[in-house]
Amino acid sequence: MDRELNFRLATEQDLDKIVAMIADDPLGSKREKYEQPLPVSYRKAFQAITADPNNELIVACKGNDIVGVQQITYTPYLTYQGGWRATIEGVRTRSSERGKGVGTDLIQWGIQRAKKRGCHLIQLTTDKKRKDALRFYERLGFKATHEGLKMTLY
Amino acid sequence: MDRELNFRLATEQDLDKIVAMIADDPLGSKREKYEQPLPVSYRKAFQAITADPNNELIVACKGNDIVGVQQITYTPYLTYQGGWRATIEGVRTRSSERGKGVGTDLIQWGIQRAKKRGCHLIQLTTDKKRKDALRFYERLGFKATHEGLKMTLY
Repeated sequence: MDRELNFRLATEQDLDKIVAMIADDPLGSKREKYEQPLPVSYRKAFQAITADPNNELIVACKGNDIVGVQQITYTPYLTYQGGWRATIEGVRTRSSERGKGVGTDLIQWGIQRAKKRGCHLIQLTTDKKRKDALRFYERLGFKATHEGLKMTLY
Repeated sequence: MDRELNFRLATEQDLDKIVAMIADDPLGSKREKYEQPLPVSYRKAFQAITADPNNELIVACKGNDIVGVQQITYTPYLTYQGGWRATIEGVRTRSSERGKGVGTDLIQWGIQRAKKRGCHLIQLTTDKKRKDALRFYERLGFKATHEGLKMTLY
């Protein structure tokens, strides 16, 4: 078994490696800015995420190495008789670790975490340009029942 | 002009009317439980939503009547250089008021609110079974660039 992964909440010391992963991606490379020092906007967002009890930034670690990341947001809704949902976003695996099941383990961990938090539903959207991602999530049990609509505001 | 709508944060006194709207819907009627007294799960969810500065439950009012509702969630992400997003969910118009532009005004209000909160993106998912909803959101400027995937946990 190649993978021995541990999952934990990200700390600010992990931020540089996380942003490197987010930027090292066909879509991410167009919209991220990974440079030294790291743009302050990443640090501010990190602080906002970790200060919010309804947001968790999770890293997958192999030894001391960070090999994957995802953000989970827990949201109370009135719909479904007042049910909480978990939303997964920003799932990335370090490029050198792709194809080894890190993404699968990340999402499986997220599903268990969402259950522990009492969520009745876990959801995510995936860009239609990421052809493999749709099949990946469907294999894990997600159903593409919805259209995911976005509007850029600036 | 038939509509003179005001928008405001929902209060707990509005909850009964809001749940009635959410239940009075082809999909909602299967999963909601509108009865007196209102199931406590709705009240708990309402309190969780209003206690969270990153969630807003917005009602559209015509005089003293509540004619529409939506929930907006503001989420900080590392992606897009640490950008905040607004997510719209649970958009409903009172059945007697449908076709009068209430939904359009709700979403337009949400877009302006998301801009004021500094969000770079506004997003939502819509059930593929709601054929008209997709066209409605596209007319308002949303792009169906993503698949919306869901998994029921219980």
